[in-house]
Amino acid sequence: MTSAASPAYRRLSVEERRGQLLTAALGLFAHRPPDEVSLDDVAEAAGVSRPLVYRYFPGGKQQLYEAALRSSADVLNRCFAEPPAGPPTERLGRVLDRYLAFVDEHDAGFSALLRGGSVVETSRTTAIVDEVRRAAAEQICVHLAVERPGPRLRMLVRTWIAAVEAASLIWLDDGKQPPPRELRDWLVDHLIALLAAGTASDAETAGVVTHLLAQETPDGPVARLARRVIPVVAEAAHLL
Amino acid sequence: MTSAASPAYRRLSVEERRGQLLTAALGLFAHRPPDEVSLDDVAEAAGVSRPLVYRYFPGGKQQLYEAALRSSADVLNRCFAEPPAGPPTERLGRVLDRYLAFVDEHDAGFSALLRGGSVVETSRTTAIVDEVRRAAAEQICVHLAVERPGPRLRMLVRTWIAAVEAASLIWLDDGKQPPPRELRDWLVDHLIALLAAGTASDAETAGVVTHLLAQETPDGPVARLARRVIPVVAEAAHLL
Repeated sequence: MTSAASPAYRRLSVEERRGQLLTAALGLFAHRPPDEVSLDDVAEAAGVSRPLVYRYFPGGKQQLYEAALRSSADVLNRCFAEPPAGPPTERLGRVLDRYLAFVDEHDAGFSALLRGGSVVETSRTTAIVDEVRRAAAEQICVHLAVERPGPRLRMLVRTWIAAVEAASLIWLDDGKQPPPRELRDWLVDHLIALLAAGTASDAETAGVVTHLLAQETPDGPVARLARRVIPVVAEAAHLL
Repeated sequence: MTSAASPAYRRLSVEERRGQLLTAALGLFAHRPPDEVSLDDVAEAAGVSRPLVYRYFPGGKQQLYEAALRSSADVLNRCFAEPPAGPPTERLGRVLDRYLAFVDEHDAGFSALLRGGSVVETSRTTAIVDEVRRAAAEQICVHLAVERPGPRLRMLVRTWIAAVEAASLIWLDDGKQPPPRELRDWLVDHLIALLAAGTASDAETAGVVTHLLAQETPDGPVARLARRVIPVVAEAAHLL
C-alpha cells in the first residue's frame, strides 16, 4: 500500500472532498426518503470509507442531510429568478418549468421533505423549507410590481405557493402525470383565477391585475382562459 | 391521609380517568407547541401525580400527544359533515365557519402540527393529518356530487385544501386577522375561482360547475363574485 495506490485520497482538497461527499449524499437523498439512506450508503456512493465521511461531517447523517438540503434550497432559489420583462404569465411558465424539473429530479427526497415525519426533520430543516417559500413569494411580488403586499395579496400569493407544493406531491404520487407542461399550464391558470377573484375584495389586487393585464397578449394564457371560461359564466346569467 | 381525603382517585373509572387526562393534555397541546408541554404539565393540569399519568399512558408524552391528535382529528372530521342540500356555497361557508372555529380553538397546536419539525412528529402523526385531508376531500366530493373524481378535479380539490391549511397558518401568524367571516368568504371565492378556471381544461369540472351553478342564488357568493369580477374581465377586452 504505497501512497500512489490511492491517489484520489491525496489529490482532492478539503473543499473538493467535501463537495464530492455532498454530491453523493444529494444523489441519495434526492431519490430515497432520508430514513432509507445510511452513512454507509453515502460512503459507498462516494467510494470512500465511513470514517472519512465522519471526518468531514462529524454530525453524521443529520449533518449531511442538512447540508444537502441547504444546497438544494440554493438551487431552487436560483431557479425562481426570472427577468421582469415580457408577458407575466410567460415568465411564470418558465419559472414553473424549472421548478417542476427540480421536483422531477428530486422526487423521493422532495416528497419526504414536504410530507414530514422523517427522523432527520428538525426546526433547522423546516426553517430552510420556509426560507424557500419566502423566496418564492418575494419573486412573485417582483413580477406583480409590488414591494410590500398588503395582507390580502400576501395571503393570495402564499396560498398559491402552498397549492403548487400540494400539486407537486400529487403529481409525484400519480407517477408524474399529467405531463409537466400540462401541470404548468394548470398552475398558471390557477394563479390567474385567484388574482381575478382577488380583485373582488381587494383594491390592491385590482390595481395589480390591471397592470398585469396590460402586459398580456391575445394568444397568451389569460386570453385563452378567458375565452374558455366566458361560456361558463354565461350559464350563471340567471344569477346576475 | 385517609382514602376520603382524595375521593377523586376512587370515584373515577378507568375510562373516566383516561378521559380526564386526555382532556388535560388536549387543553395543553392546543395552546402550546408540543415541545413546550411536559408530562409534569399534564399531571398538574389534571391534578394528579406524574406516575398516575404514566399508568394510563405508559408511552408518556408521545402517547398522550398521539391520543390528543386522534381525538382532535375526530372532532375535525365531524365538523366537515354537512347535509347536501341548499346552495353549495352556503354549505361550504358553514363547514369553513366550523373549521375556522376549530383552528381558533387549537391555535398553537394546529400551527405546530402543520409546520412540522416537532419532536413528537412521527409517521403516525402525519398519517392522522393525511387522514383528515382525505376526509375533507371526500366531503367536498359529496357536495360536488362526484363519487370518484378524475385526476384534474381531484387535484383541484386537494390543492384548495392545501390552500386552506396555508391560509389558516397565515391567519394565526397574523394574530387571527382578518375576522374569520372575511377569511371564510375569501376561501369560498377561492374555490369558486378554481372551479371556474377548471372548466377551461376539464370536461368533468365543467359538468360539475353547471350542476353547482343551478343550485346557487342571485344573492349568493357566486353571483356576488361574478358581478365584481366582470368589470375586471372587461379590462382584458383587448386580449379577446
